[in-house]
Amino acid sequence: MASIAVLGASGYAGAIAAMLVHRHPFFELAHVTARSEAGARLDDLHPRTRVPLELERWDAEVQSDVDAALVCWPHGVAAPAVAALRERGVRVVDLSADFRLHDRGIYEDWYGEHGAPALFGQGVYGLPELQRERIAAAELVANPGCYPTAALLALAPLARAGLIGDVVIDAKSGVSGAGREPTASTHFVSAAENMTPYKVERHRHTPEIEQELAALGASLTITFTPHLVPLAQGELVSCYVTPAREHTPDEVAALYDESYAREPFVELRSGPPGVLDVRETNFCRLSVHCDPRTGRILAFAAIDNLWKGAASQAVQNLNLMFGRDEREGLL
Amino acid sequence: MASIAVLGASGYAGAIAAMLVHRHPFFELAHVTARSEAGARLDDLHPRTRVPLELERWDAEVQSDVDAALVCWPHGVAAPAVAALRERGVRVVDLSADFRLHDRGIYEDWYGEHGAPALFGQGVYGLPELQRERIAAAELVANPGCYPTAALLALAPLARAGLIGDVVIDAKSGVSGAGREPTASTHFVSAAENMTPYKVERHRHTPEIEQELAALGASLTITFTPHLVPLAQGELVSCYVTPAREHTPDEVAALYDESYAREPFVELRSGPPGVLDVRETNFCRLSVHCDPRTGRILAFAAIDNLWKGAASQAVQNLNLMFGRDEREGLL
Amino acid sequence: MASIAVLGASGYAGAIAAMLVHRHPFFELAHVTARSEAGARLDDLHPRTRVPLELERWDAEVQSDVDAALVCWPHGVAAPAVAALRERGVRVVDLSADFRLHDRGIYEDWYGEHGAPALFGQGVYGLPELQRERIAAAELVANPGCYPTAALLALAPLARAGLIGDVVIDAKSGVSGAGREPTASTHFVSAAENMTPYKVERHRHTPEIEQELAALGASLTITFTPHLVPLAQGELVSCYVTPAREHTPDEVAALYDESYAREPFVELRSGPPGVLDVRETNFCRLSVHCDPRTGRILAFAAIDNLWKGAASQAVQNLNLMFGRDEREGLL
Amino acid sequence: MASIAVLGASGYAGAIAAMLVHRHPFFELAHVTARSEAGARLDDLHPRTRVPLELERWDAEVQSDVDAALVCWPHGVAAPAVAALRERGVRVVDLSADFRLHDRGIYEDWYGEHGAPALFGQGVYGLPELQRERIAAAELVANPGCYPTAALLALAPLARAGLIGDVVIDAKSGVSGAGREPTASTHFVSAAENMTPYKVERHRHTPEIEQELAALGASLTITFTPHLVPLAQGELVSCYVTPAREHTPDEVAALYDESYAREPFVELRSGPPGVLDVRETNFCRLSVHCDPRTGRILAFAAIDNLWKGAASQAVQNLNLMFGRDEREGLL
Repeated sequence: MASIAVLGASGYAGAIAAMLVHRHPFFELAHVTARSEAGARLDDLHPRTRVPLELERWDAEVQSDVDAALVCWPHGVAAPAVAALRERGVRVVDLSADFRLHDRGIYEDWYGEHGAPALFGQGVYGLPELQRERIAAAELVANPGCYPTAALLALAPLARAGLIGDVVIDAKSGVSGAGREPTASTHFVSAAENMTPYKVERHRHTPEIEQELAALGASLTITFTPHLVPLAQGELVSCYVTPAREHTPDEVAALYDESYAREPFVELRSGPPGVLDVRETNFCRLSVHCDPRTGRILAFAAIDNLWKGAASQAVQNLNLMFGRDEREGLL
Repeated sequence: MASIAVLGASGYAGAIAAMLVHRHPFFELAHVTARSEAGARLDDLHPRTRVPLELERWDAEVQSDVDAALVCWPHGVAAPAVAALRERGVRVVDLSADFRLHDRGIYEDWYGEHGAPALFGQGVYGLPELQRERIAAAELVANPGCYPTAALLALAPLARAGLIGDVVIDAKSGVSGAGREPTASTHFVSAAENMTPYKVERHRHTPEIEQELAALGASLTITFTPHLVPLAQGELVSCYVTPAREHTPDEVAALYDESYAREPFVELRSGPPGVLDVRETNFCRLSVHCDPRTGRILAFAAIDNLWKGAASQAVQNLNLMFGRDEREGLL
Repeated sequence: MASIAVLGASGYAGAIAAMLVHRHPFFELAHVTARSEAGARLDDLHPRTRVPLELERWDAEVQSDVDAALVCWPHGVAAPAVAALRERGVRVVDLSADFRLHDRGIYEDWYGEHGAPALFGQGVYGLPELQRERIAAAELVANPGCYPTAALLALAPLARAGLIGDVVIDAKSGVSGAGREPTASTHFVSAAENMTPYKVERHRHTPEIEQELAALGASLTITFTPHLVPLAQGELVSCYVTPAREHTPDEVAALYDESYAREPFVELRSGPPGVLDVRETNFCRLSVHCDPRTGRILAFAAIDNLWKGAASQAVQNLNLMFGRDEREGLL
Repeated sequence: MASIAVLGASGYAGAIAAMLVHRHPFFELAHVTARSEAGARLDDLHPRTRVPLELERWDAEVQSDVDAALVCWPHGVAAPAVAALRERGVRVVDLSADFRLHDRGIYEDWYGEHGAPALFGQGVYGLPELQRERIAAAELVANPGCYPTAALLALAPLARAGLIGDVVIDAKSGVSGAGREPTASTHFVSAAENMTPYKVERHRHTPEIEQELAALGASLTITFTPHLVPLAQGELVSCYVTPAREHTPDEVAALYDESYAREPFVELRSGPPGVLDVRETNFCRLSVHCDPRTGRILAFAAIDNLWKGAASQAVQNLNLMFGRDEREGLL
């Protein structure tokens, strides 16, 4: 058994993370924390978790008596908490963006000042399908953003094979991606029966996708545009690749087969994926298409933004860090 | 032409009221006001209105240069504005609850202190199908609540005929009924795929329905429970009547035919109504059923809570007050 | 281990039943059958099940090599299959209505001729919270209808205490309740943003609720009206009880506490339930309210119509029939 | 007054077309036809139309006693009806694809054999913002497809200016775009909370967009992928343009201003459009963005797929053909 704290368990991803740890056969949920809602019980705030624990106020001294922590706080405030946990020897999966980027200048351009400069760049990027071994050996894992998770799984086989000359990523996400804070745009009356692009040209997942594509061998500037669609959970990325070189459909199909045939959480299919098929799961469902008319390669990936895009992927990482079967507690 | 001000045009009902006045062949939209959003243009806040007017801060001196006003403010704050307008001779349709009730004690029990005691009880209850002549002669019309509109149209023929011994009203409303303020329960992620009773035993439309049933001859204590359902606009009331006396299905059918055959905005059908059929219209769609197994009479009514339940009914009242065809600007 | 066949696994409830059996630690899913879709793989038809089995055509000889079967076929066609399974000694949980009713005349009035008259009335009514011991000893369990499940859990404490003088049950269900067959009324464009009563006066769950209330001591004719609401899964019943006798709120509260405090799948709360809180679970969430104004008792219950209202309750029954912990595979 | 027949008024677009003609001050709705549902009243099938006419079976002799017809039938069956109407001198707006394409080989590749070869290529492409004068003089107008309407309005200013080097069009549509026929994919339970790409590489609107871009000076092979999203009405196209030449943001802004500043139904905004803002209107809402990081030009357009994407645009064309104000009956 390993004991786990979930910081920020009152948010959507944090609540699911707490639920998954609570149900897990090997992990034990020791603490759940919240800032403004400390004192409430998690199963009152989020009944579907059925986690009968009281939300505590974060205190590094109190909640560091655990083997590992999942930090589900926003960027900026996450970093100091991560630093405090690491000082006390606690292994951390951080769901914020604070430890995903490895270039300090890029971080500051997109996010502003970093909250724990001494630790900057120390996170292992936690996409198990790409970095399984490094995650298993890590003390600090930076859990990927939801869009990067889907986009990188969709594009990795092409990136590794030197096939991406240029790429447009058109992404669509359910409303839970906007967080639990009630706002004008998350009001049911605004969001239902609506859809719209948002953060055009400036969504913060852009440099994260570029960094990881570069790590796979594809250094390029991407076009990435997210859209808000009227569903609670679910995310679809549609990737339009201009190939960098000659290729055949068979070569492309083989690249995806080799990459994903043995992956427990990637489902490669011939037809395009729907988000409902992966709802409330850790699965990513994928398809790839070579369009003979245009010469473009199209890759689509669907995930649940709160699960594979956040909470369940964090538990998948935790499984790896503790030498467990990656699938434990997730099927 | 008559010039009209719409107070509180930044809310859902106010914006639709402003749109309907703006499009109306006889009325001219002279002012739209808002409290916190003064300075914005209405068509920026509510694009579907296509009303290119700037929201003004309310000032009784400035906006009383009109022939009539639609007051779309919450109860409590509405009354003083109505008083100020009436002092200046402006005809008013008030969409709040402030002038609907005629018993001061009941008002105070359910709403607290009244904001303009001198005017209390001066409103004519603005349900045209029941009070057409009185509305036409009125200077101050109290526009009915959304639930009372549907419930009273469903029950009036039975009430007048002395047929209501007891009644349970189970009502269901879309999320716009909760207003434009973003809250935890109007967040898309909370409201979509959910439904729940709310304000059990204590919704403020209860005494309003009782008062108007009594005016029709049916003095009784009703059971009324509203529910929140996952749609933006639309309201359905399901009325379960224990008859006060013997009757036949033919008698009941005749009562509804007589009441509604010539009503321009009531659609009596043999099958139960769906809210989509009346969406964004001033129509109320109705059915009545005599259940031979139980002896109960069931009456169902569907309206759009923001239209017939608020804004378009206010314009229907305005048409009557200015001697226009009741349907003008509403078909 | 016990081996299980699921007949009718291509429907919504059948697919979930198959998934729950497939994941269950004690049961083994041996067969899944379908009529028109035999030959397809279940996880192609219903990806979220992740059940990699091929749907077989039903053949009593082939699929009776199991310890038990869940029959997820419509009434009428279910009965002969149940008879064939029982002849071969297979224990059965039947999700159709064929073995719920105990009065042949009532069955024929509401459903027509019975498909296996020799077995008529042999089913134990499978609502574990009411009949745990009888289910544990049964060879044929009639799994309750979705509306009766919620209504009976809401009303049982009052029925047993002789408190129900009269009752109106206003029920609301998501669209999956209408089945997987595409029809005009289940088309997204018809069902989204809509809600409507249906089968007014004549829904077949009416006699089932009456039979089971009578078994609890409350013989009465009920008023029951279902409504279609725009969500996929979820069901809410709102029960309006005219009490048969004097009572106090404390007495009512105590009745519910005694009935449900130790029930693993009933969640009694002070505030009214929302269907999202029980989505994709075997839980029923309940509240009861004594209205001092009207003297009525209001009871609300929320379930997932496909889970506690069908598939997961069938597995709960299977657990009891095999002497397992009732919660196994369901938490 | 001009008398109008609407053929195929039982479908979604046909019903709205009939409603708009019925409400129109200059046009008179003389006939509505349907194939399988002849005999029904239109306001029974589609209550929101409030058109109290009976659907007739199509007969060229009977319904050609009109000044013009809107043909709302699928491609293939539309062409012979159009031919019959034209032979009798009736002006036609055809909403099918049969007269949109001008290259016979391309038509046959994507649609198969044409149903009225003698008339092939005789339609004027009915996008008023691009072809106002030609439409006004036409006897046969080919009403554009929904996706081409949005895509061409988004791209026309760039196409005319020689700025499109390459383009990816990622399009998203509500479920009404799939038609009124109930199918597995339009079932509420399949479509709600889901989204998926469809007809990848092979949607028939592709050659239509290419033909009209070429007519504007941009001959290129486009990448076009539609997606199904969970809303009833609404369509968004996201266009990612690789510029063909140097340009400045000011130049691009000026191109759009010049194109659309005086257009009554195009709303150019600085922020990206939402489909709810144009729901049930003839408006197209647009934004254009020059991304300095990537050099790409992004253009977004939102329409209601059944209105500007079909029925209301047909009436806009009819207005032009009869010398009326283009906005008549559409505001």
